[in-house]
Amino acid sequence: MCQLLGMNCNVPTDVTFSFSGFSQRGGVTDQHSDGWGIAFFEGRGLRHFVDHEPAAHSAVAQLIRSYPIKSRNVIAHIRKATQGAVNLQNCHPFVRELWGRYWVFAHNGDLKDFNPRLHGHFKPVGNTDSELAFCWIMQELAKSHANVPSVAELTLTLKELAPRIARHGTFNFMLSNGEALWAHASTHLHYLERGFPFSQATLADEDLSMDFSTCTAAGDRAAIVVTAPLTLDEAWVAFQPGELKVFVDGRCVG
Amino acid sequence: MCQLLGMNCNVPTDVTFSFSGFSQRGGVTDQHSDGWGIAFFEGRGLRHFVDHEPAAHSAVAQLIRSYPIKSRNVIAHIRKATQGAVNLQNCHPFVRELWGRYWVFAHNGDLKDFNPRLHGHFKPVGNTDSELAFCWIMQELAKSHANVPSVAELTLTLKELAPRIARHGTFNFMLSNGEALWAHASTHLHYLERGFPFSQATLADEDLSMDFSTCTAAGDRAAIVVTAPLTLDEAWVAFQPGELKVFVDGRCVG
Repeated sequence: MCQLLGMNCNVPTDVTFSFSGFSQRGGVTDQHSDGWGIAFFEGRGLRHFVDHEPAAHSAVAQLIRSYPIKSRNVIAHIRKATQGAVNLQNCHPFVRELWGRYWVFAHNGDLKDFNPRLHGHFKPVGNTDSELAFCWIMQELAKSHANVPSVAELTLTLKELAPRIARHGTFNFMLSNGEALWAHASTHLHYLERGFPFSQATLADEDLSMDFSTCTAAGDRAAIVVTAPLTLDEAWVAFQPGELKVFVDGRCVG
Repeated sequence: MCQLLGMNCNVPTDVTFSFSGFSQRGGVTDQHSDGWGIAFFEGRGLRHFVDHEPAAHSAVAQLIRSYPIKSRNVIAHIRKATQGAVNLQNCHPFVRELWGRYWVFAHNGDLKDFNPRLHGHFKPVGNTDSELAFCWIMQELAKSHANVPSVAELTLTLKELAPRIARHGTFNFMLSNGEALWAHASTHLHYLERGFPFSQATLADEDLSMDFSTCTAAGDRAAIVVTAPLTLDEAWVAFQPGELKVFVDGRCVG
């Protein structure tokens, strides 16, 4: 099984602390070592890093751990290959443009007998079930809306689309357009909202603590969504099977 | 004016030497300091780095200079903003997917009164004339061919499309799908083919030499395309105004 990490905030926030623990799961505290990737929105722009080296040992991951890129929407993924070879085109997250916005997608799970008809303009570059699911979602979003819809409208459409894929297997996924973060769980996904008053948190995968009260302002908010809780001393909430949640400005809004 | 760098090779080759000199033009030997970007194909996959920090001082550019990513097709760009703000979504190269392949594009120049009708599925995310030109090219390629055409067919189509944009101003551009590198010059573009017997080259922008005979095999070939020659002691060939060239396996083939 792969590992997913998402962050949605109301102000640009660096993901260094969470990514530091998360990336240990790519080869140190867990065996998901078939590549990794991370995408950071910066305004409408996007920084996208993928690597087929294990995240725990990758030079690019080392850059991310040490260079605090600030973003309001981040999606990261550590891959344990189930379908598709270990190569760069199969590393998540995947990116496409629609309506003049970038869309970022990462998936954890395994889809069986999933062969949707791709008659639109989104085609997979690699050969994973995950990129196929992403292309189908983009195609269906493009068909359902003439232009960028509101977050609420997109959420409704995604709530219709997700079960049509999830019936083919495990479909934990994250999607962001830089405005909101959507997360859907078939099996394992947890989330946490950090806000005032901030306190200390200790990573589960690494001997590292952070006192968020020393590096935040009173109005800052961040939501973290992850396969398995990243910290030992915070109140993580488990998703229910089949649940799709949307996060805006660091809050779960639906 | 911005600066462009492209590399096309028959075997995966690192661009460290060329990028080392090239990136000095982003704030040290030249003033193109409004961001930069580089894209490396690896098979069908792509590594894409963009940064709005000057290339000469960027932590991400430092990673590229020190971490030898090997690729057969590379496009890099250093930006001097003429149209569009200095932000991440306006940094070249731009990436889109078509026919299940990634396409990478970077432009140097300035287009006036260029307002093509975008009725297809490619829309700019930022607000540069360059990304607009790229989206129009992708739209027209998608209309001209039902599936990935041959390099020769693509070259013919691009030779029809390029002058329709170039009449609006300066349109030096590079485009790659990981199979070939196309380069078009309105004004400044130079290329070089490196092959057996390899010799020494000295960077024009930095006190650095490289003896290619020590790190190459006899069959290795690389073509480098750049705004202004990168080395002092090699036979760079200037593009003619309006010329579009295509490079495959380290050779200019048309």
